[in-house]
Amino acid sequence: MGYNLRLLISCPDKKGLIAAISSFVAMHDGNILSADQYVSERESGGTFFMRLEIEGEGFGLERGEFGGAFAPLARKHGMDWRVSYTDTPKRMAILVSRHDHCLMDLLWRWDSGELEAEIPLVISNHPDLAARVEAYGIPFHHLPVGPETKAEQESEVLDLLAKYGVDLIVLARYMQILSPKFVGAYPDKIINIHHSFLPAFAGADPYRRAHERGVKTIGATAHYVTEELDAGPIIHQDVAHVTHRDTVEDLVLLGREVERRVLARAVRWHLQDRILVDNGRTVVFE
Amino acid sequence: MGYNLRLLISCPDKKGLIAAISSFVAMHDGNILSADQYVSERESGGTFFMRLEIEGEGFGLERGEFGGAFAPLARKHGMDWRVSYTDTPKRMAILVSRHDHCLMDLLWRWDSGELEAEIPLVISNHPDLAARVEAYGIPFHHLPVGPETKAEQESEVLDLLAKYGVDLIVLARYMQILSPKFVGAYPDKIINIHHSFLPAFAGADPYRRAHERGVKTIGATAHYVTEELDAGPIIHQDVAHVTHRDTVEDLVLLGREVERRVLARAVRWHLQDRILVDNGRTVVFE
Amino acid sequence: MGYNLRLLISCPDKKGLIAAISSFVAMHDGNILSADQYVSERESGGTFFMRLEIEGEGFGLERGEFGGAFAPLARKHGMDWRVSYTDTPKRMAILVSRHDHCLMDLLWRWDSGELEAEIPLVISNHPDLAARVEAYGIPFHHLPVGPETKAEQESEVLDLLAKYGVDLIVLARYMQILSPKFVGAYPDKIINIHHSFLPAFAGADPYRRAHERGVKTIGATAHYVTEELDAGPIIHQDVAHVTHRDTVEDLVLLGREVERRVLARAVRWHLQDRILVDNGRTVVFE
Amino acid sequence: MGYNLRLLISCPDKKGLIAAISSFVAMHDGNILSADQYVSERESGGTFFMRLEIEGEGFGLERGEFGGAFAPLARKHGMDWRVSYTDTPKRMAILVSRHDHCLMDLLWRWDSGELEAEIPLVISNHPDLAARVEAYGIPFHHLPVGPETKAEQESEVLDLLAKYGVDLIVLARYMQILSPKFVGAYPDKIINIHHSFLPAFAGADPYRRAHERGVKTIGATAHYVTEELDAGPIIHQDVAHVTHRDTVEDLVLLGREVERRVLARAVRWHLQDRILVDNGRTVVFE
Repeated sequence: MGYNLRLLISCPDKKGLIAAISSFVAMHDGNILSADQYVSERESGGTFFMRLEIEGEGFGLERGEFGGAFAPLARKHGMDWRVSYTDTPKRMAILVSRHDHCLMDLLWRWDSGELEAEIPLVISNHPDLAARVEAYGIPFHHLPVGPETKAEQESEVLDLLAKYGVDLIVLARYMQILSPKFVGAYPDKIINIHHSFLPAFAGADPYRRAHERGVKTIGATAHYVTEELDAGPIIHQDVAHVTHRDTVEDLVLLGREVERRVLARAVRWHLQDRILVDNGRTVVFE
Repeated sequence: MGYNLRLLISCPDKKGLIAAISSFVAMHDGNILSADQYVSERESGGTFFMRLEIEGEGFGLERGEFGGAFAPLARKHGMDWRVSYTDTPKRMAILVSRHDHCLMDLLWRWDSGELEAEIPLVISNHPDLAARVEAYGIPFHHLPVGPETKAEQESEVLDLLAKYGVDLIVLARYMQILSPKFVGAYPDKIINIHHSFLPAFAGADPYRRAHERGVKTIGATAHYVTEELDAGPIIHQDVAHVTHRDTVEDLVLLGREVERRVLARAVRWHLQDRILVDNGRTVVFE
Repeated sequence: MGYNLRLLISCPDKKGLIAAISSFVAMHDGNILSADQYVSERESGGTFFMRLEIEGEGFGLERGEFGGAFAPLARKHGMDWRVSYTDTPKRMAILVSRHDHCLMDLLWRWDSGELEAEIPLVISNHPDLAARVEAYGIPFHHLPVGPETKAEQESEVLDLLAKYGVDLIVLARYMQILSPKFVGAYPDKIINIHHSFLPAFAGADPYRRAHERGVKTIGATAHYVTEELDAGPIIHQDVAHVTHRDTVEDLVLLGREVERRVLARAVRWHLQDRILVDNGRTVVFE
Repeated sequence: MGYNLRLLISCPDKKGLIAAISSFVAMHDGNILSADQYVSERESGGTFFMRLEIEGEGFGLERGEFGGAFAPLARKHGMDWRVSYTDTPKRMAILVSRHDHCLMDLLWRWDSGELEAEIPLVISNHPDLAARVEAYGIPFHHLPVGPETKAEQESEVLDLLAKYGVDLIVLARYMQILSPKFVGAYPDKIINIHHSFLPAFAGADPYRRAHERGVKTIGATAHYVTEELDAGPIIHQDVAHVTHRDTVEDLVLLGREVERRVLARAVRWHLQDRILVDNGRTVVFE
């Protein structure tokens, strides 16, 4: 079975980086299937970002060899880099409370082959969705949380994530704020769906507040979670048009459609290694 | 030449309003071309909104007679109402600073017959756009404004608006904040275009702030101007998708397209008497 | 429990129809919750369409009485009309082949309370989706079809639909062409989802043909089924943007998202009695 | 003043192309500002497409030298290629009949600095728009056409285009069909705006036909002109939603907005050398 490598690089910009990187690949007989590149300009100088997808077949470097072979080039140019292999899908955990629309949509897409991931577990602070998750053959963990057990529950969640070797956490309407410790353990690896077009209506109850303000569009935002609530790097956003006739309940219903679409796209991009983070903003190589 | 009446009504909701109003029209041999109705629910009870378009030909009430004939019904139900005639277009003034995209778009649409209005004048605090406006045969008034002449200049603007009998003021990127006195003189008759999807990035420089936040959509909002800056009833909003590659300048350029589209639609709806204001929110009978 | 009436009317246009209808309602103490009206102009004269939603509580006509009371008015104006009650949901059958995305989306929405319907059965010409349907507690009927058993299978389908008292049939990617007899038995009661923005790519394999043509948008169309293939009245359409990078498989994947969104909205509108058919085109009172 | 080079390449796909090209640039001290790449898969083997934007300052090859230096590499890999310099804008002619919305929009954008082009002339078969064009300081040529003078008029148009050294022709609603000779003289250099989402409603009068069919979206398509009418490579498409209330005239009005937006974007991409043609389809490096 064929597989590809995905190589993600960022480093200070300078002349000759593409030549250096692509020559390295060519030297090892690699076939570049796609190449994306971007330079982010800042006063302190540019930052170079690159994503390469390289055919595994015929490539001269074995998995164990790649790091050693690439290290001198990486060191020379001060690169942050990572490589992944398409036959080793990421391990994704989904955290959810009671709203099931994002969860069910992700499970259906996963089951349809749309998401390159393994889903070793779903965790919820409510028991309601156990049967729906288990119908997909995925273990469901109910870890209730109360005002006094918040820290303890979070520890249990972290233990489970570690135990199952999770490398992507999706908050599919998980109505709990994560501690800095939790967030710090998974930098740029926790995706949240916020039910408004951030930065509008950051915080709680966005549909009610959107209705009160009388907006004519509602939206949803998928973003990486950082310590500051609802302020992490935005991955994707979309909106739907609404009218004066739409009640708060209508906004919730319409919003569900936007939320699941936006979240699914962000998750797919992450699983395909299309996202880099540039100083609080995302670079998305669609 | 044919003309229509447009009757806009709001009043406390109760049974039988549609029957009462449509029977009044039928009694005077009126042909209803379109009827829109909406009830806004609030804890204190519902409010009824209605828009009727009635064929002028064959209608039994002359212009001078309508008010007297309708008054008893209006009084009985506590109606706020107004009637307009399609052969008496509204008189619209455009206020602009230096950015000409919204202005030129409105002028072109007006010239193409898309906007049912007369434009007796354009006012600007800069002289730059005089030739472009005068090419359309519209008088251009340059009223410069400085830190010490703000109140004085505003008085001159108000004098001009009164002199020309203006009943709609469009702020087509007019970078001046209007005083409460000015706003109070034209309630729900001043339309502003804000270059963001409010309430996000209210205030100045929204494209720069959107870029810094790394949003994936930008937008524009047309709203009625109220005393509180950028908080008036929203008439229309739309967005455009952007990526990490878009610079602030790209956002400005893309945003111009959204701004002019959103503003034009809001102005057209206002000119067609399609908008009512319901407690800080608009009811738009598209 | 409260319920509403929904009254749909079409008839030749003339003066006074709204007054006549709304006065009838008022006379029987009906509270009109929403009223929509439209006149379709044709050379042969206009046609009047109206949809009223009337509060059941306090309305003076019992279910059994409405027809008799309304008949004289209907006869006088030559009305086609029907009334439905929101506490008597429609009975919807879903027909599906192997693609499950539209089916699963409808079932999930139905289960979430988004669709006002009963679903007494799902019918498929393949056995694959039985478990997924039965997980929602809905009977699944597998009626295979072969080149020689087409007529026979269709008879069985019709028998089942009759037996279960179905009044809406949704073809959720049911890859069989229905006979004129079948179509004639359910006029404006069969909704199909076509995976292109009709009339482009009518017929088979639209995504492949869209890819070959190099279009930059793909779409989906929900329409009522008529004898002529893919030519029935269009209820709803939407599109997604694509690029040269998208393969046929990508179009299929993206298209699934559009298809399910478009179909769900069309079904919801139908279930809420928002759709009338006007000479091959739909009138949709959103 | 700074300038950039834009290098466009297509050739049979093989390993090492990116390395070979970027090494050539690096060898001559070139700074790659952006790089886009795409491989089109076909049964007969892949085709490689690339676009590089290289900073002029510091690049070691003078304008006159580039071709000679690049030729060996190009020959070795069988490349089709072209280079352009951003300080030598393309020379764009606009052809128009009577509808001025696309024309005026292009002129306004050009005047605002949005389009990197010179516009040496506008040609029309009607005299109506002369003043509007000349107000922008652009020569207007009126070349009327009749049933018997079609070939002759086209010759005059071609003469003018040659005389003014035009390298992009924009048909901004030019209601004349060009001869194969004309089309053949400007391969992938004539952009047309068609007022429907092709392939739907190819040919004449699309808005009327869209209305008759009762579609719920209308659209516009910008494409390169080829011999076969309305069948050339599609550059960009977009749509607008419509309802049963929209008359043919409303569709025309709404469509104008889509047409000018779609055309402007296609023209901008062409002027920025972002478009390659791949066997009847476009590759657009946005």
